[in-house]
Amino acid sequence: MPAYDDLMAFQRTTEALAQVAGRTGWDQETFMPKGAAPQRAEEMAALEEVLHARRTDPRLGDWLEEAHALDAVADANIREIRRNYERNRKVPARLAAELARVTSLAQGHWAAARASEDAAAFRPVLAEVIRLRREEGAALADGADPYDALMQDYEPGGNAAEMAAMFDAMRPRLVALRERALDSEPAPTISGTFPAAAQIALAAEIAGRFGYDFQRGRLDLAVHPFSSGSGIDVRITTRVDEADPFNCLYSTIHEVGHASYEQNVDPVHLLTPIGQGASMGVHESQSRSYENQMGRSEAFCGWLYGRMRDTFGDLGIGSERDFYRAVNAVRSGHIRTEADELHYNLHIMLRFDLERALIHGTLEVDDLEAAWNERFAHDFGVPVDRPSNGFMQDVHWSIGLMGYFPTYSLGNLYAGCLMQAARAAVPGIDDALAAGDPSPATGWMRNNVHQFGALRRPADTIAHATGAAPSAGPLLDYLEAKFGDLYP
Amino acid sequence: MPAYDDLMAFQRTTEALAQVAGRTGWDQETFMPKGAAPQRAEEMAALEEVLHARRTDPRLGDWLEEAHALDAVADANIREIRRNYERNRKVPARLAAELARVTSLAQGHWAAARASEDAAAFRPVLAEVIRLRREEGAALADGADPYDALMQDYEPGGNAAEMAAMFDAMRPRLVALRERALDSEPAPTISGTFPAAAQIALAAEIAGRFGYDFQRGRLDLAVHPFSSGSGIDVRITTRVDEADPFNCLYSTIHEVGHASYEQNVDPVHLLTPIGQGASMGVHESQSRSYENQMGRSEAFCGWLYGRMRDTFGDLGIGSERDFYRAVNAVRSGHIRTEADELHYNLHIMLRFDLERALIHGTLEVDDLEAAWNERFAHDFGVPVDRPSNGFMQDVHWSIGLMGYFPTYSLGNLYAGCLMQAARAAVPGIDDALAAGDPSPATGWMRNNVHQFGALRRPADTIAHATGAAPSAGPLLDYLEAKFGDLYP
Repeated sequence: MPAYDDLMAFQRTTEALAQVAGRTGWDQETFMPKGAAPQRAEEMAALEEVLHARRTDPRLGDWLEEAHALDAVADANIREIRRNYERNRKVPARLAAELARVTSLAQGHWAAARASEDAAAFRPVLAEVIRLRREEGAALADGADPYDALMQDYEPGGNAAEMAAMFDAMRPRLVALRERALDSEPAPTISGTFPAAAQIALAAEIAGRFGYDFQRGRLDLAVHPFSSGSGIDVRITTRVDEADPFNCLYSTIHEVGHASYEQNVDPVHLLTPIGQGASMGVHESQSRSYENQMGRSEAFCGWLYGRMRDTFGDLGIGSERDFYRAVNAVRSGHIRTEADELHYNLHIMLRFDLERALIHGTLEVDDLEAAWNERFAHDFGVPVDRPSNGFMQDVHWSIGLMGYFPTYSLGNLYAGCLMQAARAAVPGIDDALAAGDPSPATGWMRNNVHQFGALRRPADTIAHATGAAPSAGPLLDYLEAKFGDLYP
Repeated sequence: MPAYDDLMAFQRTTEALAQVAGRTGWDQETFMPKGAAPQRAEEMAALEEVLHARRTDPRLGDWLEEAHALDAVADANIREIRRNYERNRKVPARLAAELARVTSLAQGHWAAARASEDAAAFRPVLAEVIRLRREEGAALADGADPYDALMQDYEPGGNAAEMAAMFDAMRPRLVALRERALDSEPAPTISGTFPAAAQIALAAEIAGRFGYDFQRGRLDLAVHPFSSGSGIDVRITTRVDEADPFNCLYSTIHEVGHASYEQNVDPVHLLTPIGQGASMGVHESQSRSYENQMGRSEAFCGWLYGRMRDTFGDLGIGSERDFYRAVNAVRSGHIRTEADELHYNLHIMLRFDLERALIHGTLEVDDLEAAWNERFAHDFGVPVDRPSNGFMQDVHWSIGLMGYFPTYSLGNLYAGCLMQAARAAVPGIDDALAAGDPSPATGWMRNNVHQFGALRRPADTIAHATGAAPSAGPLLDYLEAKFGDLYP
């Protein structure tokens, strides 16, 4: 099969360059000197130019025509290369390079404008990103829905109609749970002193307990926590708020979910198309399973209560049960990444509707802040007091990630399916979590999800692991059981 | 001039990719997880494959044929692109990629083997690097001397015969100075407690005093101090030995010399062939001027004595003069990077002779350690006790840098010429240094060397700044005056 071998040799170099580009992005968010941004934008554009040229190289078309898959791995590799080839051939090189340059710069502008609550400074930057992504969406869609076309980058096979149906199924049960919780006695809150260094040390310890391999990764600080890289160099970041240790700790567990998925892919797939997560939705199923279903479980909270008292002293909370209630407090907060499990998907629904309107051209950036604030007040019952608590809170739109947000909710849905299957298959998950040991649960994920990477399509990945097509039922059942108990 | 514009647009992307490759190397030496080395080797090879393809792209030949320089800047850009194009066309892509992969891995093997004094583990690794560099040297030389051919990467226009003549001119006067110093009363040594964090903080302060711009750079730790990058992202590293603060401080000043050269190139040359230092020799003239002629001057030592006593408390030394003697102590040490100004060039002469023999095939890697130890005992009068004090001390050979070492001595020679000219042109250099302010001297370098980047060829760069062709006289006069005073 010389065509397949040639294809894979070429692809391996492309994958290696993509890893370099990813790490260059990581550097930009962690250690890059502030003054280097203009040069960095040119570097990212140069990498994007090279990657785009490789991903649209006409030889790929020839090899794809000649190559025949002899096994499932080859079949999946060919499937992924073909999908990306056909996608990237539709985007002019000029547009791809411009997107890379503009989003690289926009990220810095976003961070600066967010820090100074300067919506006026951010608007023209975002408008330029939207303009380019609209153009890209139109080029990809071939007359169909440009938003659906953009979504394929994050969730191959996904589409807005299915997402909307998923949200319609979720909304009433979530809203009912939310209302009951908000009408109940508020959960207790922790108090105390939480020095940054101690938070980071504890976050690193917990990362190790959840299976993150520091020999093939590292933990640093960034404005917006993220996981970066595939294979044997998978790095995570977190952030520290000295008033709120849960921010650092649960951001870390979340990113460990993403990073473990990448670190645990079978090494034979290193630097191949399937040597990475199957989609953002499946990725988010891991981060959400780790963060919420394991990390915020009553069992793990029991262990964490003791461990945090050892680290920080008195927490102003008298029992494991009250600590569990504090960790899972339901509140109408502004910030998505700090939202409880009930409000989280409401945050996503808001963004999903607004970003579809931005891409469809039925909403312009000049009207975005007002639209956000009105919708937020309606859905959450509290006004938005400043841009960093509103439409400027997330990095995503500044770097062009439209069509990405719904994969977070899809990930929650997948997480519900996977954890239901894991609990059915593995005894003692909670007993181990109560001892600070997530390995029975993470081991099931490793064996049933992680090792396969992108061997199967996203929904098939979940179905293979659970034995059933994914649906919202298990997530909603889990949420009703958990929050019905917490807010009886 | 469409051909020139096309040439420069293409080149700008290549330069941006080269910056990414450089920073990927920086990451490897600073923050890369240990387990990531195999993947990193593939990433470096992929970058090298792309860079090699661009640097040998046949369109470069067409553009170079058609482009005509309308000014000195265009002339210099064309000169540099042509030189590299003609050089890289001679190296097969397969060999270039193999060199990148092997040297990337070899660096990790070197660091591990050096840490465990395991010469046997390092030998086959080095042998492979030498084999590839011999092959490359032969391809580049077209029948002429392969060592001279390799030197062109570091010192365009340089050759081994001139280097040998330079060393012949230096050796007797250096040996005479060295013998007088070693026959004299030994210099005092400092004592005290030098915590790592305080050393790094002081190193950062001194870096700023020497003009290093942290807005466009950063200071981190690495096994072997280095400066990395051009333009507006120029990073330096240092190392810390808690028993010897001079190691950290003077390594930092040295790297600040390199980094300032890059940071101070006229920004109009950003991401062009002349937007960087003219050669390794001219580069080293800056690091050596900063480290030795400014940093180890009696004037600056006076300031540093007070500043170090403020930082570390008692140094066990009673006067500025004794501190100056301690900083400039002449001793037969094993380590090049810790060598005084008299022994330094003797270290280089040893490496120059051995690496020429390695490339010429008159010395094999299996015999290198014995050859090194014999020569070292002869030149320095002390035996080599372990590989990390001998042939395994430097990173250079493991990453294929043969032909690089002599540029260190050439840099010393250039530094002598430049500082002689600076002192003649600028009054009050020493008065300012005595107040901890190197800016009169560094400002002269900026105006007369840095801003021009690679606009002129290396020797012309020095001649333009000093008004005279470079020669060894000023360096040797400086050394005789300084060490004649220190060891009367």
